[in-house]
Amino acid sequence: MLDHSATWDGLPAATQALIVTNTTVGPLYAARLQQALAGRFGQVHVLQLPDGEGYKSWDSLNQVFDALLSHACDRKTMLFALGGGVVGDLTGFAAACYMRGVPFVQVPTTLLAQVDSSVGGKTAINHPLGKNMIGAFYQPLRVVCDLDTLRTLPAREISAGLAEVIKYGPICDLAFLDWIDSNLEALRRLDPAALAYAVRRSCEIKAAVVGQDERETGLRAILNFGHTFGHAIEAGLGYGQWLHGEAVGCGMVLAARLSQRLGLLSAQRVQHLSDLIGRAGLPVRAPRLEPDPVANASRYLDLMRIDKKSEAGQLRFVLVDDAGAPHLQPVPDALVREVIEAGCA
Amino acid sequence: MLDHSATWDGLPAATQALIVTNTTVGPLYAARLQQALAGRFGQVHVLQLPDGEGYKSWDSLNQVFDALLSHACDRKTMLFALGGGVVGDLTGFAAACYMRGVPFVQVPTTLLAQVDSSVGGKTAINHPLGKNMIGAFYQPLRVVCDLDTLRTLPAREISAGLAEVIKYGPICDLAFLDWIDSNLEALRRLDPAALAYAVRRSCEIKAAVVGQDERETGLRAILNFGHTFGHAIEAGLGYGQWLHGEAVGCGMVLAARLSQRLGLLSAQRVQHLSDLIGRAGLPVRAPRLEPDPVANASRYLDLMRIDKKSEAGQLRFVLVDDAGAPHLQPVPDALVREVIEAGCA
Ligand SMILES: NC(=O)c1ccc[n+]([C@@H]2O[C@H](COP(=O)([O-])OP(=O)(O)OC[C@H]3O[C@@H](n4cnc5c(N)ncnc54)[C@H](O)[C@@H]3O)[C@@H](O)[C@H]2O)c1
Ligand SMILES: NC(=O)c1ccc[n+]([C@@H]2O[C@H](COP(=O)([O-])OP(=O)(O)OC[C@H]3O[C@@H](n4cnc5c(N)ncnc54)[C@H](O)[C@@H]3O)[C@@H](O)[C@H]2O)c1
Ligand SMILES: [Zn+2]
Ligand SMILES: [Zn+2]
Repeated sequence: MLDHSATWDGLPAATQALIVTNTTVGPLYAARLQQALAGRFGQVHVLQLPDGEGYKSWDSLNQVFDALLSHACDRKTMLFALGGGVVGDLTGFAAACYMRGVPFVQVPTTLLAQVDSSVGGKTAINHPLGKNMIGAFYQPLRVVCDLDTLRTLPAREISAGLAEVIKYGPICDLAFLDWIDSNLEALRRLDPAALAYAVRRSCEIKAAVVGQDERETGLRAILNFGHTFGHAIEAGLGYGQWLHGEAVGCGMVLAARLSQRLGLLSAQRVQHLSDLIGRAGLPVRAPRLEPDPVANASRYLDLMRIDKKSEAGQLRFVLVDDAGAPHLQPVPDALVREVIEAGCA
Repeated sequence: MLDHSATWDGLPAATQALIVTNTTVGPLYAARLQQALAGRFGQVHVLQLPDGEGYKSWDSLNQVFDALLSHACDRKTMLFALGGGVVGDLTGFAAACYMRGVPFVQVPTTLLAQVDSSVGGKTAINHPLGKNMIGAFYQPLRVVCDLDTLRTLPAREISAGLAEVIKYGPICDLAFLDWIDSNLEALRRLDPAALAYAVRRSCEIKAAVVGQDERETGLRAILNFGHTFGHAIEAGLGYGQWLHGEAVGCGMVLAARLSQRLGLLSAQRVQHLSDLIGRAGLPVRAPRLEPDPVANASRYLDLMRIDKKSEAGQLRFVLVDDAGAPHLQPVPDALVREVIEAGCA
């Protein structure tokens, strides 16, 4: 699909385009995309960045700017983000900043990017002191999901993407959660019909939530179900140890337990979610960051406090209930500590 | 005024504030501002960057992020840009990107910043390959102009600021141009009433133009009268040799001559504008960038082509006419060359 010229009909005219990709995805798909775009732009440049979350950095961002400026790219130049969420977030942010904004297109090639990161306009890079700390809200012109590209994606990455698919269930659509439950094995073996439905429904839910709160002043935060714990896991282990989706999977189990502790969610629902996450090939037990239990919980709390959901020192969590509704609320540290201690491996 | 607590009434609540300033302005005004804000924020941090256009850079931007992150500043943290356009543009961009956007307040302390850069929401940093290449459209919560701060500003900087005041005349308000003509000496000696009127009228005109075209898709470009030549002068001499306002002053003379060559502006009006710019203490003859005349014009053209007003290689200029109306149009290279050759010292 991404290599069909017709896929790109209707994009505004520009003399130059820049495909930003990485050293894993580039060799697989960049030439096809470049050829499909060749008739539409005078020049289609390709920039291949190193692969990895660690390269969602200042340094990579500067490489995009250097490429744009060395080709004397103007304000109409179109950027194409060809890759997973790392390439998408970084390229989107580069597009947001280059000459105060040039158009860009998302071409997500991971399940996570297709169901989550490419939709909604959040772009960012990491800072040594925190993930996604520097960024912008900036919408792509278009998102093109080619499900065929998922065939080259490692199974571990498919599982990580499933974490974000699963998250849409507990926060607002229990029917979708049931559908996932029935189709999980089909999804894991990349059954085209199952994949197509999961991607479409995920994007619909995300777009509906974001449409009501683009700048994340309230509702949008529900998409971060499992993410407050998840970010702590990613930061605590060092980025790249666990995949984002793995950390989120495990984070959802902790968030569900916290919901249970507050009387919102039944033990049965917690168990069901935890089982589903396990069946998706994701970890359900949190990593121990410190040998001592008290120190371990403190470390989690510290890491969560620097996360942006923490305002004025008050830790707020996305919790869920038995009716499939989200609750965004502050939680006493003591309860969080209990859940961490009970949830750690 | 900036040191009166009442000046800051009505700002939203936040636990932390960060004043970004530089080593020249900080020692003069930061303590007063910090004191005035002390009652309103739990903590008011101050970050002093080195002084100069060369520090409108990645590196300085990172220093702002480092300061914010090391104080664990959240999404409500308010940034205050205390200084000239350099501090304002950089701080505004930092505010646009930190956690995808935190509120910020402009406290401009140069004439140029008070009449131009603090209004309109353009923020940016420079890239070694081009000025203001990386940035965002991001509006300040409030702009607080304390005219008293201009008393410590060097006369050369006052002149540079007057260039931006003057530019509002030819592009849309000949009556204001006449007023400036009659009040130029009062402005240069910082007469409070004259200054207050010039700042107010400048901001009104800029806000009216920006209000019709925030993202600079058309009309807003008229505010760049003199800037295409000006940016070439700044880049050609190396940033910091000529002040931005000096380059713009001289650039307006070249743009007026180009308008004359195209039959839009009378010789008399060109002379009048050139005289006014000279009386403001600004250069009216362009610097020679190459000894050979042809090579010199080519160098100007090359530098202007990388400027963002150049799209698809076509150079477009803001021109003005005898009725005080702007014209944004492409101009043949040959005419531009003639004007550069005639206008160089
Ligand atoms: N913007 C948002 O709203 C949002 C939402 C969720 C996550 N994110 C971000 O997304 C990032 C994670 O995204 P991700 O999970 O896609 O990680 P990723 O971009 O690192 O991709 C995972 C791995 O798969 C490789 N890959 C990508 N496509 C492939 C393909 N078709 N075949 C073979 N290999 C392929 C990549 O090179 C990489 O090694 C994180 O940085 C996270 O912060 C952003
Ligand atoms: N964002 C916009 O729309 C816009 C418009 C025009 C210019 N700009 C930008 O503004 C910058 C130029 O701004 P500028 O002319 O204010 O330069 P500047 O910020 O460098 O200030 C000029 C000098 O005056 C000093 N200074 C500032 N206030 C002072 C005071 N009250 N007393 C004594 N010294 C003081 C500064 O430290 C500096 O040395 C350029 O980077 C330009 O690109 C932006
Ligand atoms: Zn996520
Ligand atoms: Zn200017």
